Amino acid sequence: MSDQKPIPQVAGFSFGACAAGIKKPGKLDLGLILSSVPARCAGVFTTNKVVAAPVTVTVPRIKQRFCQAILVNSGNANACTGEAGLRDARSSSEMLAAALGIDDELIAVSSTGVIGKPMPMEKLAAAIPQLPATLSAAGAEQLAESIRTTDSFAKLAFQTGEVDGTRYRILGIAKGAGMIHPNMATMLAFVLTDAAVSDELLPEALKQGVDQSFNVITVDRDTSTNDMVLLLANGQSGTAEIRPGTPEAAGFCRGLNAVLLELAKMIVRDGEGATKLVEIRVVGAVDGNQARQAACSVATSNLVKTAFFGEDANWGRIIAAVGYSGAEVDPDRVAISFDRVAVVRNGLGTGPELEEEATAILKQPEFSVVIDLGLGDGSCSYYTSDLTYDYVRINADYRT
Amino acid sequence: MSDQKPIPQVAGFSFGACAAGIKKPGKLDLGLILSSVPARCAGVFTTNKVVAAPVTVTVPRIKQRFCQAILVNSGNANACTGEAGLRDARSSSEMLAAALGIDDELIAVSSTGVIGKPMPMEKLAAAIPQLPATLSAAGAEQLAESIRTTDSFAKLAFQTGEVDGTRYRILGIAKGAGMIHPNMATMLAFVLTDAAVSDELLPEALKQGVDQSFNVITVDRDTSTNDMVLLLANGQSGTAEIRPGTPEAAGFCRGLNAVLLELAKMIVRDGEGATKLVEIRVVGAVDGNQARQAACSVATSNLVKTAFFGEDANWGRIIAAVGYSGAEVDPDRVAISFDRVAVVRNGLGTGPELEEEATAILKQPEFSVVIDLGLGDGSCSYYTSDLTYDYVRINADYRT
Repeated sequence: MSDQKPIPQVAGFSFGACAAGIKKPGKLDLGLILSSVPARCAGVFTTNKVVAAPVTVTVPRIKQRFCQAILVNSGNANACTGEAGLRDARSSSEMLAAALGIDDELIAVSSTGVIGKPMPMEKLAAAIPQLPATLSAAGAEQLAESIRTTDSFAKLAFQTGEVDGTRYRILGIAKGAGMIHPNMATMLAFVLTDAAVSDELLPEALKQGVDQSFNVITVDRDTSTNDMVLLLANGQSGTAEIRPGTPEAAGFCRGLNAVLLELAKMIVRDGEGATKLVEIRVVGAVDGNQARQAACSVATSNLVKTAFFGEDANWGRIIAAVGYSGAEVDPDRVAISFDRVAVVRNGLGTGPELEEEATAILKQPEFSVVIDLGLGDGSCSYYTSDLTYDYVRINADYRT
Repeated sequence: MSDQKPIPQVAGFSFGACAAGIKKPGKLDLGLILSSVPARCAGVFTTNKVVAAPVTVTVPRIKQRFCQAILVNSGNANACTGEAGLRDARSSSEMLAAALGIDDELIAVSSTGVIGKPMPMEKLAAAIPQLPATLSAAGAEQLAESIRTTDSFAKLAFQTGEVDGTRYRILGIAKGAGMIHPNMATMLAFVLTDAAVSDELLPEALKQGVDQSFNVITVDRDTSTNDMVLLLANGQSGTAEIRPGTPEAAGFCRGLNAVLLELAKMIVRDGEGATKLVEIRVVGAVDGNQARQAACSVATSNLVKTAFFGEDANWGRIIAAVGYSGAEVDPDRVAISFDRVAVVRNGLGTGPELEEEATAILKQPEFSVVIDLGLGDGSCSYYTSDLTYDYVRINADYRT
């Protein structure tokens, strides 16, 4: 992103990062997001029953609806660390509260990295007091850098909106490349806006946005213990409060959704070892849920994903994945196309010429597979990557 | 298998195979199993809603409870081939009926291979009349050979049993290496016994056996359009009829289950690109279903499977997969061991020394992961393979 355009600032938010030594020496691995005032907040968290310590600590804090700072580290997930892990998460937050001079309960803590290793608390104790000095309104990219694990690039997305002529900004920062699957993924995302957003609207807006973005991407089906999406709205743009059911709320959700979807697609594009970003679009399903089921089944099929890697328009694997998805299917009505090239009509292949055209489309880094079930109005898009040698290499070697 | 011991004969059954040219010239690709008399039969079929033509043709025939011959080809699945595919499956069966001089309705047809290509009927028309001449009581290995697609070895398993001093035999022949997942897999299995088995017992025995074998293996989650397991009992051993609820029925089920499980494990061991066969054993679940859910979640996790390939005792991925399985989990009670080496107790790692011991176990071609949830009596074993570079290579290149 940084090559393309500078990341604009969001009023009242500043960002810091340092190399605490949790990852290899010299690598940014500890980050801080600070709002000048306590911000309204909402969160979406992992559905895994094995929950990392920072998630356990942060969930009740976010429920109190105000958050002023996010402390985040990479290199260690602080998961499966028992009581000691909880103590470590809490004491990190206390150290930061002291350094910032704010209430401990206004701090969200977040971690990503290896599971089952104790947090190196002596390193955190040395680094946390240094963090505030690194804060800068222009530091979002440093922060994005500090939360990377297997990510090959830092992930930021930005949108603006307006309320009565007053401009506000929405900035999203995410990490995630593997273990990506609803609900949700080994991913963290922090979305910061200087709009004033009402208490009712904020969680609702986040939930619907996540449902259309991080919950329709897949790299490898695995759901981690640490997933967290936080949305902070500090009102420092000076807009009037955005309330549910208004045109301004619709505008805010549009902007938020665009940020979330852009981050979500970046995560798939950066999927471990991925060389392709593929939209699996199911239309004509009996309803939206069945469309989602069918799209998910195709998007998560290892056979489909290896065929994408092989640039093989192997629609047999796609129709098989639709067939076992659980969605209602009448094979004789199924149509499949790659972008605009129809390879299946009425459940039958359209022949070698069109399949060859489709093969050309599969050579692109991004394309879509459109599956029309021909039964109803339900539709859903899922985003997936190909399954490659490098996925295997990265995950066979991750800890060694 | 053929290196180890000759495959014994099963009274009244003979086997034939030829190279019909469906696969590359000269490769066995068309097989025939014939019973000297109509045999009682039972079948289990794909749950995919997209069903291949031979399955559609065979299901009602098996329901009539008698079968005398199985015609099977590799190289073409005859799936997604519409009305023409159904016609082709029926006319293949008619040609064989004429060649054998038996009733068409006593023939099961079965196919495996590429989806969406028309059957080369001129080749079948030339080959089918030649098939009976290839029949031999000792031809099971040839038959097993003729149904291979990506299988790297032919799969046969054998057991014997006794009723009142009269010996009977159970011979299983299977194919399958990828697209392996409940319920069931890109797999075919034909199980032939010369025991006399009652009409009530036969389907019941097959169902419970498949549930403990082909339904607890996974290579890549995909369920195909062609799966079929047929069990034929022709009574030619001269045993008295085996009836449900008797010690003889229990003995028959034990033998049948051993054949099915041996074939199932062969399929996983031969999983596309697999270098390891891993038993995922969950104990201490609330009930058997939850144990199955948890075992399935671990066995199908790409991250767990790549860690096996990397010989990395990465229990964090295992506990995460248990956590998102949907089974009830209390993280603080979870214990995990590789064979007998405990790497997790009460949800916490047991330290680097034991983890190193576990790493040595992962270097073996076969080992087990035992996950104790500490909640109840439910248990289940799943069998899985590792996810390797070769899996990607095989499936990216399959049709090219």
